[in-house]
Amino acid sequence: MEDLRLVIKHVQDASRYEHTLGVAYTAACLAGVYGIDTRKAIRAGLLHDCAKCMSDLETISLCKEYGIAISEVEMRNPSALLHAKLGAKLAFDKYNEKDEDVLAAIEYHTTGRTDMSMLEKIVFVADYMEPGRDKAPNLYEIRKLAFHDIDKALVTILQDTLEYLSCKNKEIDPATKRTLEYYSEQQ
Amino acid sequence: MEDLRLVIKHVQDASRYEHTLGVAYTAACLAGVYGIDTRKAIRAGLLHDCAKCMSDLETISLCKEYGIAISEVEMRNPSALLHAKLGAKLAFDKYNEKDEDVLAAIEYHTTGRTDMSMLEKIVFVADYMEPGRDKAPNLYEIRKLAFHDIDKALVTILQDTLEYLSCKNKEIDPATKRTLEYYSEQQ
Repeated sequence: MEDLRLVIKHVQDASRYEHTLGVAYTAACLAGVYGIDTRKAIRAGLLHDCAKCMSDLETISLCKEYGIAISEVEMRNPSALLHAKLGAKLAFDKYNEKDEDVLAAIEYHTTGRTDMSMLEKIVFVADYMEPGRDKAPNLYEIRKLAFHDIDKALVTILQDTLEYLSCKNKEIDPATKRTLEYYSEQQ
Repeated sequence: MEDLRLVIKHVQDASRYEHTLGVAYTAACLAGVYGIDTRKAIRAGLLHDCAKCMSDLETISLCKEYGIAISEVEMRNPSALLHAKLGAKLAFDKYNEKDEDVLAAIEYHTTGRTDMSMLEKIVFVADYMEPGRDKAPNLYEIRKLAFHDIDKALVTILQDTLEYLSCKNKEIDPATKRTLEYYSEQQ
């Protein structure tokens, strides 16, 4: 994995790279517990924020280049809401990632979606709870939960994220709400 | 943590460094679940094998320099059985690690000991189950167990290790047997 680490390190600032390593290995630990390929989890984790360290202008320009449809809410928050979709395209095109499940895990790591694969859930949850995080609410509970009931961890994270965004008067991607509704019904 | 990663990378071969990263972040995930300092866990993980990539001659010579008492079984298996004790000395002396709990976690990561701290248990378990491991028996069960009952994971690892050493006619450090006896009685 060293080659991929070095390539990603090159396109991220220092703190984003620390976060990336944390996500990659947290995803690997979760993969080990849920019986899926740990190497795929590491690749998905290393690549999940490959489009994060870009200006809004560059993000929009690249999205247009790749033919990614941009909603109004995404256009107002390009870096926060488009880096996942763009990241999946770059992972395929620039970083030679051809595994559909890894690409989906990158694409849906910020909003989630209905009927996620185990790898998608793992990257979503790892992104929130990796060891470098220390400010999110309920971190201790979520870290415990993630290793024995990942769907419950997913719901808690989605609830906390929506609450945080509401408190901060930040815009909410409707996709996040749909994911929460879907997984709340499954509980 | 980048500075420490780079220093350790410099004294390890590529595969040992991959293992080291795996142990550091697995330890951090376990630390998050058991409510202890994740940064200490990462430091202990990064440093645990700092004395591993040395010749037997160099290992014995450095142990003598640091005044480490060498038993007969250790003298016959220097790299396997002395790198942990030597690693703790080097971590203190060369890598400026002054935290007693981190140093103990390095010193006892191969044999364990009675009455281990949570960090000691975490590094011991992480060393066995990090994502890069794929040949050890019962890995899937141990990875699940580690996140909800670390003492049970510890006992399973010790049992499997002793069985493996017996099958391969390899020498067993009596300290490993003592650790197993102690934690078996606690169950």
